[in-house]
Amino acid sequence: MPYVNIRITKEGTTKEQKAQLIAGATQLLKDVLGKNPKTTFVIIDEVETDNWGIGFDQVTELRKQGN
Amino acid sequence: MPYVNIRITKEGTTKEQKAQLIAGATQLLKDVLGKNPKTTFVIIDEVETDNWGIGFDQVTELRKQGN
Amino acid sequence: MPYVNIRITKEGTTKEQKAQLIAGATQLLKDVLGKNPKTTFVIIDEVETDNWGIGFDQVTELRKQGN
Amino acid sequence: MPYVNIRITKEGTTKEQKAQLIAGATQLLKDVLGKNPKTTFVIIDEVETDNWGIGFDQVTELRKQGN
Amino acid sequence: MPYVNIRITKEGTTKEQKAQLIAGATQLLKDVLGKNPKTTFVIIDEVETDNWGIGFDQVTELRKQGN
Amino acid sequence: MPYVNIRITKEGTTKEQKAQLIAGATQLLKDVLGKNPKTTFVIIDEVETDNWGIGFDQVTELRKQGN
Repeated sequence: MPYVNIRITKEGTTKEQKAQLIAGATQLLKDVLGKNPKTTFVIIDEVETDNWGIGFDQVTELRKQGN
Repeated sequence: MPYVNIRITKEGTTKEQKAQLIAGATQLLKDVLGKNPKTTFVIIDEVETDNWGIGFDQVTELRKQGN
Repeated sequence: MPYVNIRITKEGTTKEQKAQLIAGATQLLKDVLGKNPKTTFVIIDEVETDNWGIGFDQVTELRKQGN
Repeated sequence: MPYVNIRITKEGTTKEQKAQLIAGATQLLKDVLGKNPKTTFVIIDEVETDNWGIGFDQVTELRKQGN
Repeated sequence: MPYVNIRITKEGTTKEQKAQLIAGATQLLKDVLGKNPKTTFVIIDEVETDNWGIGFDQVTELRKQGN
Repeated sequence: MPYVNIRITKEGTTKEQKAQLIAGATQLLKDVLGKNPKTTFVIIDEVETDNWGIGFDQVTELRKQGN
């Protein structure tokens, strides 16, 4: 009964991509640990780029610089 | 000083229901462990159904199937 | 399919008390939102008192002061 | 490679204030533990006041009472 | 720069299996969203079976029943 | 009433260093947003190096390579 929380910046991830993340993470837990998909949760959090920082900087600013 | 994080799908939970979850969780910690409500935090995260998966599937799709 | 995460300080909570927290939180989600207990997860994190702070202070120190 | 998650109520925090929180938390990890800012993540979650409770009450209600 | 948190029950997961979870989750984010592995964090939390509940019950008890 | 969760690898952080992280994070929230320290929680999670990955690799392996 694993719980997987994927946190990414909110930058246009599509419904289909989310479905792929959910299926892929569920399969991973099944393959590596034999976990039952029926009780595997995957939750995706999309975080505004103003609210995510790395290396002192907001991702919003990093994107402006081409990173 | 407990911290309780309740994560549910975003499907129309009302302000009143949220108040009930907050009061109920706070009471539970008080009853079972004698925790002080004044320093008990309850935070509810509402997650889009596209962003929550179980059994390989997005909740959005499960709802279409009547689950 | 709610996910409930209860974080408390590690101060001798018994297995029975944990069972009560699990049952109580599951019942709360069922009562307030009609959530299915079969897909309700409750996870309790016990945190060392050195690792939890409130009001600038470690809980370890607060306990020495009788708080 | 620390991960810092700051959860606050959603009450008008500006982009500049978020930048200060990110820079300050990154500096703190560098100063205290010598952690590399390049692999220090800071994520700010802003939570609706209806969804945050303390002392049995929603923050929305506490604000109406002047707290 | 994704952050992936995998929470599982503490039941003898090996170092090698953890390495597989880390590599697999990092690859998934790269394949689906083109995320840079150098800034992809994967953190595995192992939770005591007394501290994880599903369907009102502690996993410790479910294991005794052969589940 | 902020909640700050600092996740670091478990590599000998002392009680004093934890106290500094708690005090520093609490001060940061007070300085930037005027938050009340009495209701500011700081929780430090120490994660085994086998359980933390970056760039496909376990931190345990990165440390052996001098990173």
